Amino acid sequence: MMAWQDNVRNVVPYEPGEQPECKNIIKLNTNENPYPPTDKVKNAIKNFDTDTLRLYPNPKAADLVRALADYYQVEEEEVFVGVGSDDVIGMAFLTFFNSNKPILFPDITYSFYSVWADLYQIPYERPPLDDNFKLVKEDYYKENGGIIIPNPNAPTAVYENLSVIEDIISHNRDVVVIIDEAYIDFAGKSSGELISKYDNLLVVQTYSKSRSMAGIRIGYAMGNKQLIHYLNAVKNSYNSYTMNRTAITAGVASLQDKEYFEFMIDKVIHTRERIKKELSQLGFTFTDSQANFIFASHRKVLAKDIFEALRKEEIYVRYFDSKRIDNYLRISIGTDQEMDLFIKALKQYLNM
Amino acid sequence: MMAWQDNVRNVVPYEPGEQPECKNIIKLNTNENPYPPTDKVKNAIKNFDTDTLRLYPNPKAADLVRALADYYQVEEEEVFVGVGSDDVIGMAFLTFFNSNKPILFPDITYSFYSVWADLYQIPYERPPLDDNFKLVKEDYYKENGGIIIPNPNAPTAVYENLSVIEDIISHNRDVVVIIDEAYIDFAGKSSGELISKYDNLLVVQTYSKSRSMAGIRIGYAMGNKQLIHYLNAVKNSYNSYTMNRTAITAGVASLQDKEYFEFMIDKVIHTRERIKKELSQLGFTFTDSQANFIFASHRKVLAKDIFEALRKEEIYVRYFDSKRIDNYLRISIGTDQEMDLFIKALKQYLNM
Repeated sequence: MMAWQDNVRNVVPYEPGEQPECKNIIKLNTNENPYPPTDKVKNAIKNFDTDTLRLYPNPKAADLVRALADYYQVEEEEVFVGVGSDDVIGMAFLTFFNSNKPILFPDITYSFYSVWADLYQIPYERPPLDDNFKLVKEDYYKENGGIIIPNPNAPTAVYENLSVIEDIISHNRDVVVIIDEAYIDFAGKSSGELISKYDNLLVVQTYSKSRSMAGIRIGYAMGNKQLIHYLNAVKNSYNSYTMNRTAITAGVASLQDKEYFEFMIDKVIHTRERIKKELSQLGFTFTDSQANFIFASHRKVLAKDIFEALRKEEIYVRYFDSKRIDNYLRISIGTDQEMDLFIKALKQYLNM
Repeated sequence: MMAWQDNVRNVVPYEPGEQPECKNIIKLNTNENPYPPTDKVKNAIKNFDTDTLRLYPNPKAADLVRALADYYQVEEEEVFVGVGSDDVIGMAFLTFFNSNKPILFPDITYSFYSVWADLYQIPYERPPLDDNFKLVKEDYYKENGGIIIPNPNAPTAVYENLSVIEDIISHNRDVVVIIDEAYIDFAGKSSGELISKYDNLLVVQTYSKSRSMAGIRIGYAMGNKQLIHYLNAVKNSYNSYTMNRTAITAGVASLQDKEYFEFMIDKVIHTRERIKKELSQLGFTFTDSQANFIFASHRKVLAKDIFEALRKEEIYVRYFDSKRIDNYLRISIGTDQEMDLFIKALKQYLNM
């Protein structure tokens, strides 16, 4: 033990899904989109003027903020951008969750929430979801230091109607409520429409799933101007230039092709619904997934055994060895061809 | 005042140099490199496969870490990468400076250090530099919670010999000492050679200055494996994927052209030395700059007046309205042509 270790922050980091390097695997474990981004992104990168790299990017990533504001029909001052939604949410925890009261989020949810809380020494409580993995909204009526809820939730894939979300926000006007909508484009209505009504609401979305750009690292938040102002103040107290020039350029280009975006999402949803039927026939039960993944459990065979059997076939899905969900698999939606191979491997393993 | 504002973190953000959007200005205010990055970077971006953007980057940015380890002849486990050196140093503050004792850094230095300390509520003291803007090493012998020293310092451009740096490190084996070497490639020996000797030393460098890539956002730290391990644990408790795929690709490519790198640095240094002579003839005094900028004061005319006069000519230099340095200008080294126009404007204003 070296003396300087006394001052080291004690953390247990988040563990992302495996990122195997080899090419011939079927990767259904990190909820990436199986389809490439629009050709507008391809052209934007191909024509990118690398001479401009000598200069710092615009510290506000103004072009990207403007493009997002236009896209969502909000003011520029209502948009914040970061290096993936993890950066956005991490920054929001640091900015808004400075109370002695616990923040609240569901017992089953994105595992990074508790990691950020631990990192910044924020107390937290985790009200349990009900037996159908739905929110119990009354659990969020108690005094707290802030709330974060993902909608749709991960890894459960359950989408809550806006009325439930709004009920929780309206019962908590004295704290900031973050709605993490990483998967919203595969689901239903966004709570974005509520930001003009609730000054304590921050809605976070990402390019990583529906925009097929997990590799470019862009997340963004929408909220009232004062909320975004505070978020920018903390961001600018950490790093003036978080968004690099290629990300800004590619991020703007992605928004310019709504047609492809909608086509691709429909395609993923179509595959998801087909796979639900196939899984059902193979003896799986699952929530009514409204995301780009399915959260499934087999009636007879242990999830962990299926996970390991698939892994041997170089098919990677996600397994969480955690309370209440240790008999579930989280299966990202791949291409139709990948999903056919996945179903084939399942049939073989299950002797069906 | 809204109730949720009670829980907001109170900060005063760092203010970067102006980034005017117009093209026809002479921008000598943010220490950017006037020359573009190597053609290897240009080709890497041009040939970048945007289809891969659908996938998350490698969470360890392994290709970049490996390339840096090779370049500096250290182990991969001795290298940490981040979104510019601001991200690296901000993360290091959060990781290593968790003591009740104050951390130490010079009174005149990079203004982000106090911003990070305030953000994370770390106490700090700022021992004054001597009248020549040199470190007083004995000031760093007192008990403290950690030390950060830039070498060369900014905005003073003063480089300290490694013996001074090593003296401070060796007197502080019980805390982490960060040497911020953003400008080292324009100066002398790096303290990187000391990391194998001192397990409490973290050396931070950046692509933003000498590698002409401020726009790609890459910084890195070198230190012993245990130090890097802790830094990664905190980074992975904040954001698994900080480095996007284009940054990793461009960052690796930049390291493959040592010839151009050295040529370009020589060029900047050559211009710097020429401008020193010119400034001297115009009545300026300055430190013996070992960076890509000059920190200068005029014998007769106020820095602020010169700053404003240059600004009217669309020549941007940096002026800090701070104690001890409010009669200095920080002038980044541009191309020879830009510097000629700068000198010409100065001559006109000074009637010389």
